[in-house]
Amino acid sequence: MADQRQSPAAGRLAIIAGDGFLPIYLAQAARDAGDEPLMIRLRNEAAQAFEGFETVTASIADIAGFASIFRQHGINRVVLSGAVKRRPDWRDIRPNWKALRQLPSLVGTLISGGDDALLQAAIGIIEAQGCTVVGAHEIAPALLARVGALGIHQPSDDDQRDVTKAAEAATKLGELDIGQGAVSIGGRVVALEGVEGTDQMLHRVAVLRAEGRISARRKGVLVKLCKPQQDMRADLPSIGPSTVENAVRAGLAGIAVEAGRSLVLEEDKMVAAANEAGIFICGIDMGLPDGGLS
Amino acid sequence: MADQRQSPAAGRLAIIAGDGFLPIYLAQAARDAGDEPLMIRLRNEAAQAFEGFETVTASIADIAGFASIFRQHGINRVVLSGAVKRRPDWRDIRPNWKALRQLPSLVGTLISGGDDALLQAAIGIIEAQGCTVVGAHEIAPALLARVGALGIHQPSDDDQRDVTKAAEAATKLGELDIGQGAVSIGGRVVALEGVEGTDQMLHRVAVLRAEGRISARRKGVLVKLCKPQQDMRADLPSIGPSTVENAVRAGLAGIAVEAGRSLVLEEDKMVAAANEAGIFICGIDMGLPDGGLS
Repeated sequence: MADQRQSPAAGRLAIIAGDGFLPIYLAQAARDAGDEPLMIRLRNEAAQAFEGFETVTASIADIAGFASIFRQHGINRVVLSGAVKRRPDWRDIRPNWKALRQLPSLVGTLISGGDDALLQAAIGIIEAQGCTVVGAHEIAPALLARVGALGIHQPSDDDQRDVTKAAEAATKLGELDIGQGAVSIGGRVVALEGVEGTDQMLHRVAVLRAEGRISARRKGVLVKLCKPQQDMRADLPSIGPSTVENAVRAGLAGIAVEAGRSLVLEEDKMVAAANEAGIFICGIDMGLPDGGLS
Repeated sequence: MADQRQSPAAGRLAIIAGDGFLPIYLAQAARDAGDEPLMIRLRNEAAQAFEGFETVTASIADIAGFASIFRQHGINRVVLSGAVKRRPDWRDIRPNWKALRQLPSLVGTLISGGDDALLQAAIGIIEAQGCTVVGAHEIAPALLARVGALGIHQPSDDDQRDVTKAAEAATKLGELDIGQGAVSIGGRVVALEGVEGTDQMLHRVAVLRAEGRISARRKGVLVKLCKPQQDMRADLPSIGPSTVENAVRAGLAGIAVEAGRSLVLEEDKMVAAANEAGIFICGIDMGLPDGGLS
């Protein structure tokens, strides 16, 4: 036991689970890889029950409670997954002594930091408890978006222009640690993602479209990028069947996500829906001109 | 008549009117200054009737129609005012020969330009007809926001931090010609204004707040800035009583607008509402540290 934190065999994996399908996918991927994960549902956030997996529930601000779960279950690796919609109030934080030193900066970040800064603080707290935080992509590398089209439809030249425009805006958003997504229609960025999230942003686009405030003739594109400074162990952008559904309602031509730094959930179901609806889904390489599409 | 376009005495002022209260304020200000304006209501955009003023209606894409109105009424100065919610389809454009040369670039801008680029194109089209486009602030300089608090409430230190954060985000948005407004709460930017406009963005913040996704304890600030590259003759950011109403619903502490480059409509009514609701309204000088607030 030279370094307990580095050795999967010496300890168990915990999956801290917020909302959405990512946690259950990771749980299955971990089991397939021979690792039996403990699911830690976040109270008021996780919607799923994780039947068939050992599951406990904890409040997001209860650091002492997490520490005790880690200890009881011999956890040495932790992965953060799923959406967290509500930030806890700092008054709800229950620290333990290992987290005391980080408390002042944690409170500051909780109150005024962007999501990225806050997740970074959460990673620091967990690692101070003696666990290693690993990325979802390390547990389930098959979920990472690849470069190129996933389905049968390809972006047109107009769509590629929208991809470029929306990617430019999403990069600025990410630099400011505000959000990960942008929608460009006809070469013009019409919506930027803030706290509301991708689905709500797409809903807004659908409403603007229905009101005639966005051209009915130009389709447009959703782009989601990882923030430039983002730790890949925290909150990778993700897309899934509901993203396709909402993109179709918003009248978009397709969806582009950053290859290698975004997660594709329920790929078969999502691609089938996209193929059927006539929209493209592609991974773009932000290090390549035109995202590596051409 | 050495230069007809420069001399108010040699021709009449037309106010092209979209939605909202700005056009009627400008009409009154022009009349007070001894200039009897012709009101040109934009079909499907202008909500007001402009009773007591000579008024015609035109479709936004009908360049030939505008040219004929300008000629018939001896118009030599034009001011653009009010909100335009729907971009016309380029197929609806009715050019005249004076506008033919600008047509290809106009169509391109209409399809994929930001608002600023499109307004710039509109100004070019109007000036090619022999009229001078003047800014709303030239007709009614009293509407320009001044530096400092307008009402009895002042931003706190926390509010000033939010002003700084939101102004930083709004500057980036403006550089990308996407929008003019941002909301920061507790030092964290939670919403950015796209095509939907300020009122819709504030509504979104109110919903996020009601859902518990934004801290109930931190109030936050709306900031509206002129885009850095923006022609002041086009679409200055503006606030009015409805902005205060929506800011109050969103639970904000106050509103900051760029002094000298934003318009304050119905100031008395707005300030009374803000004083009553306990929120601040202030003009900030983007060339000064802390916006000139401290």
